[in-house]
Amino acid sequence: MFILDSSSPVPLYTQLYHQIREQILSGKLPAESRLPSVRNMASELSASRNTVDGAYQELYAEGYIYSRPRSGYFVSALDQEVAPQATSGKPGRNDYLPGPPSCFAYDFHPARLHPESFPAELWRKCFIDGLRRNSQQLVQYGDPQGDWGLRCSIQGYLERSRGVTCDPDQIIVCTGLQQSLEIVAQLLKGSHSVVAVENPGYHLPRSVFQNHGYTIFPVPVGQGGMDLNQLKDGNSTIAYVTPSHQLPLGYVMPVAHRLALIEWAESGGRFIIEDDYDSELRYHGKPIPSLQGLRPSGNIIYSGTFSKILSPALRLSYMVLPYSLLATYRQLYRAYFPSVSLLEQRAMANFMEQGHWERHIRRMRMIYKKTHDILLRAVDTHFGTRAVVVGQGAGLHVVLMLPDTRQSEAEIIDRARQRGIWLYPFSDFHMTGQPEAATLLLGFGGMKSCEIEQGIAILSQLC
Amino acid sequence: MFILDSSSPVPLYTQLYHQIREQILSGKLPAESRLPSVRNMASELSASRNTVDGAYQELYAEGYIYSRPRSGYFVSALDQEVAPQATSGKPGRNDYLPGPPSCFAYDFHPARLHPESFPAELWRKCFIDGLRRNSQQLVQYGDPQGDWGLRCSIQGYLERSRGVTCDPDQIIVCTGLQQSLEIVAQLLKGSHSVVAVENPGYHLPRSVFQNHGYTIFPVPVGQGGMDLNQLKDGNSTIAYVTPSHQLPLGYVMPVAHRLALIEWAESGGRFIIEDDYDSELRYHGKPIPSLQGLRPSGNIIYSGTFSKILSPALRLSYMVLPYSLLATYRQLYRAYFPSVSLLEQRAMANFMEQGHWERHIRRMRMIYKKTHDILLRAVDTHFGTRAVVVGQGAGLHVVLMLPDTRQSEAEIIDRARQRGIWLYPFSDFHMTGQPEAATLLLGFGGMKSCEIEQGIAILSQLC
Repeated sequence: MFILDSSSPVPLYTQLYHQIREQILSGKLPAESRLPSVRNMASELSASRNTVDGAYQELYAEGYIYSRPRSGYFVSALDQEVAPQATSGKPGRNDYLPGPPSCFAYDFHPARLHPESFPAELWRKCFIDGLRRNSQQLVQYGDPQGDWGLRCSIQGYLERSRGVTCDPDQIIVCTGLQQSLEIVAQLLKGSHSVVAVENPGYHLPRSVFQNHGYTIFPVPVGQGGMDLNQLKDGNSTIAYVTPSHQLPLGYVMPVAHRLALIEWAESGGRFIIEDDYDSELRYHGKPIPSLQGLRPSGNIIYSGTFSKILSPALRLSYMVLPYSLLATYRQLYRAYFPSVSLLEQRAMANFMEQGHWERHIRRMRMIYKKTHDILLRAVDTHFGTRAVVVGQGAGLHVVLMLPDTRQSEAEIIDRARQRGIWLYPFSDFHMTGQPEAATLLLGFGGMKSCEIEQGIAILSQLC
Repeated sequence: MFILDSSSPVPLYTQLYHQIREQILSGKLPAESRLPSVRNMASELSASRNTVDGAYQELYAEGYIYSRPRSGYFVSALDQEVAPQATSGKPGRNDYLPGPPSCFAYDFHPARLHPESFPAELWRKCFIDGLRRNSQQLVQYGDPQGDWGLRCSIQGYLERSRGVTCDPDQIIVCTGLQQSLEIVAQLLKGSHSVVAVENPGYHLPRSVFQNHGYTIFPVPVGQGGMDLNQLKDGNSTIAYVTPSHQLPLGYVMPVAHRLALIEWAESGGRFIIEDDYDSELRYHGKPIPSLQGLRPSGNIIYSGTFSKILSPALRLSYMVLPYSLLATYRQLYRAYFPSVSLLEQRAMANFMEQGHWERHIRRMRMIYKKTHDILLRAVDTHFGTRAVVVGQGAGLHVVLMLPDTRQSEAEIIDRARQRGIWLYPFSDFHMTGQPEAATLLLGFGGMKSCEIEQGIAILSQLC
């Protein structure tokens, strides 16, 4: 599409010349492609034939186009050197695709859910009901913190199931943990500059806080979660933790540690970010109380998500801000708009209000408990005493340590790939250091029982 | 909900005591509320009666609860001083509601769309089709840059209608301009620190870049858009502009100015953020070529949205990054996830692929042209020569300057409010200085014809 501006001092034919030239240089008009006839181009642009002819003559004179008798003008093949650098050096589409690039027979990705698990029919009903009742609300911006009804539903759910004590006022509906962390990074900037993270731990908080100019302080993880002595020895004033099911090692932080961590935060105006990402998926034992519930008035930012039970593709999560941050949040974000579609928020609110969410959790917990148990049995059968399992009993992955294996992680991943097995590199969780023994992260959420059994059998031959 | 951890060294009754005490202090358990009986609490917690009795006795001894014969334990009324500060100072819910707090008969909000305009039935079909075809995709994360099909549709649309020349690879699907700006602020940080914005201009870029630590350089706006001489005199290396319809004054940047602005950027490794927010809504004259289309290989970040034509509540927008920023984007954001729901992206892609989007634009353009013309006629009728209209012919608002009015903006807004008219304060667009004359911003998107006529009649009596 070319656009001519008759109010411009630049002659129309020159404007057209520049625009066609640009398309040729950028490759948009490839070599040997035919230009429209002078008559057609003129009519398309509502311009005179002289204008088009002038532009074509100039392009012809400079060698950008050539003519064939009775066929019209065609784009010349240009030397590589002439083309702008940006175009020739452009990155390919596949440089940035996340996760497995193609289908694997055995995909141990830790963030896949059961392939048939999305409750499409219920979601359809909840969505359509929300659309029917809210289509007039769609002509304006909604509440920047999130739909009030959804926040009330989340508040009730968190209180019942996680012991989180908060007002819907403290809840912010987000598009995922990364948005929560972006907000927190901005709220705490200025008075905070060092963030403690678990090592090994989730890469996302490292990325987000680094992108916001923070220094990352990796703290080793033991069976009680983040090592509090090492935390206290550092100068971080923010700690990001996954106390319900440490990512990736799966340890649960005991209540005594939780209280000590809270004490660390309270004693120095420090903040805890509690990522309760898969607290719903515990297969054995009592529920673990949330840090926020232990000290609702503390400096604890609680983050939860619908990604692990319902769908990672819906991009729906929530964060509970402590009262101490609400005023700053409202100051910094007063000009902002909501991030999650109102229709999706209304669908989720309906889904929760009608009890589907808690029923879905129970259903998924049963399904994943079954695959979890099958995985453990398969590991026991095929690896026996060669493997030490860590972090079982919750979530969507377990960790396998292989003390006697001499191969590097890269070798194992590569050999597995050749046999149709996709493994997430455990080393990605390490900011510093590496695990002492070969370590495999086995996500089982997206796998069928038979795939688990076969996949583990093949893996056991490779390691 | 109380949770006891039997593996903790803290006695169970002490754990329970602390949790109940916390709820009392936070006001969650209000004064005079009755505690469950020892028997019921014990059964609910799967704990012994001794545990519950121990906790109650301790709370009783410290005065947190009192007993009534044959009725059980009740929460005591505590002194204000005992309650934690955060709770007593908590902000109210209404501190942060955006836009008009209640319904006005005449709502001149500039970001409201026609109340009946959302194509609910078409959207329902597109959504359900997307859900049906993609429910298995919902169990995993999607492409962080956005659904490929949607990006292809956006690319085609931008090329046809806006002359934007790009690959789908350069497109990032976002939740709105604010997310685009957040990304740009991070991409350019380090090598850039001063952002030029239009004055008067949109408040959002100011907020986002300020929150990211940038200095804001306000540049006056004339009939040609941002004053390029003043821009060149400053030391900014990023310019945020609304060249198709300056927000709020509605001026269109002529092509000569556009080329000069591009030249400014190219000559010094500087960047232009082109916010093409309501380019689709031009009621007279030729389409205005986008800056990006004039120099696709330049340092121009193009931003567009579905908010102005389809719905601001869907939170769907897009950004075209120049190739020069793609590598940095992929480096900084490689660990990130998409922000927009896959279902919504698929619905939008269907909506575009089936031609509904471009039909909807044409339909809305006709509707808004009608209300736009009615507004201008009403202003002419009721204000006559008292008012100068600025920025007509495009978008969803016009600006009314009233050179002879002596009242302040606050007075006018307040008097209008008493007559049922809601006005957006024009002064919000000014970062520095104030308009010379009383200036009204009249959004007409959400108004019916009769409301416009009556609202303007009332306004003309007030000013």
